[in-house]
Amino acid sequence: MSKDKIAAAIRDVRDFPCPGIVYKDITPLLKDAALFAEAVELMAEMCRPLRPSCVAAVESRGFIFGAALALQLQCGFVPVRKKGKLPYHTLAASYELEYGEATIEVHRDAVQPGERVVLVDDVLATGGTARAAAGLLRELGGEIVGVNFLLELSFLNGREQLQEYRVSSLLATGN
Amino acid sequence: MSKDKIAAAIRDVRDFPCPGIVYKDITPLLKDAALFAEAVELMAEMCRPLRPSCVAAVESRGFIFGAALALQLQCGFVPVRKKGKLPYHTLAASYELEYGEATIEVHRDAVQPGERVVLVDDVLATGGTARAAAGLLRELGGEIVGVNFLLELSFLNGREQLQEYRVSSLLATGN
Repeated sequence: MSKDKIAAAIRDVRDFPCPGIVYKDITPLLKDAALFAEAVELMAEMCRPLRPSCVAAVESRGFIFGAALALQLQCGFVPVRKKGKLPYHTLAASYELEYGEATIEVHRDAVQPGERVVLVDDVLATGGTARAAAGLLRELGGEIVGVNFLLELSFLNGREQLQEYRVSSLLATGN
Repeated sequence: MSKDKIAAAIRDVRDFPCPGIVYKDITPLLKDAALFAEAVELMAEMCRPLRPSCVAAVESRGFIFGAALALQLQCGFVPVRKKGKLPYHTLAASYELEYGEATIEVHRDAVQPGERVVLVDDVLATGGTARAAAGLLRELGGEIVGVNFLLELSFLNGREQLQEYRVSSLLATGN
């Protein structure tokens, strides 16, 4: 089954970025042309019923599946970036990380009121970044029709942060 | 002509990131589903004759066109990242910026010896980042069959940094 092959191409790297953490390394999956294309199409199949007009994603890794999905879904792409990176008029949101705080921004003209937006990322961990990004896009008037992930780390309960949204993930792992 | 439409969707933002600089803002282009898809396909047409097996790109903005092009070309995707972001065994290169220095990394198993690699980015400015990334991929044994950009800022002479490579860009601007 192809979902199994996609899952098998995600590499566990122990003790990154710090001791005790098992990092989900998607680079072997990205490198396999057929598996990458299949993962994008399977994610697109989850998003099509939501009839989005654009795909939004947070830098940096989010841009990989976000841009590929936008292309596959024939949607526009909205980059959400770290503070100070976007050149035009922006709207910002700060959120808590395990250590400290992060701020992300989106262009104020990135989404039109009522526009159907799917938010995409590779990994759902604690959900803090996705929650902040979805909030920003909503503040612009966008309708978040779904939040879609390649891989959900179920044991981190990220869905709890995203209860207001329709969350889906291609793969899930309990460890 | 569609290249004109693509060019018209790139917005000039004055005095970003600092006074006197005119920043080329591609977000309006990305947001237009048809123009984004067309730009990706036109870039893909430039890359297909090079018969790449993978597309490499440097974070963050490079990931947008890089991932989309990998999908369009049915290639694998190789992310080149800033120092400390890639979890597995890496190879690093430092290069000079206008102020200070930057370091980028790639996974040591990202490219196989002899593999045909196209390096992609949205904007060719001074060429320093592309030169460093191409050097890294070569050090792994990859053959850089081309370096392809959406937009070349011709007045910055970035091609001079990339004389060893076949450089192409969909659009060029002299100002």
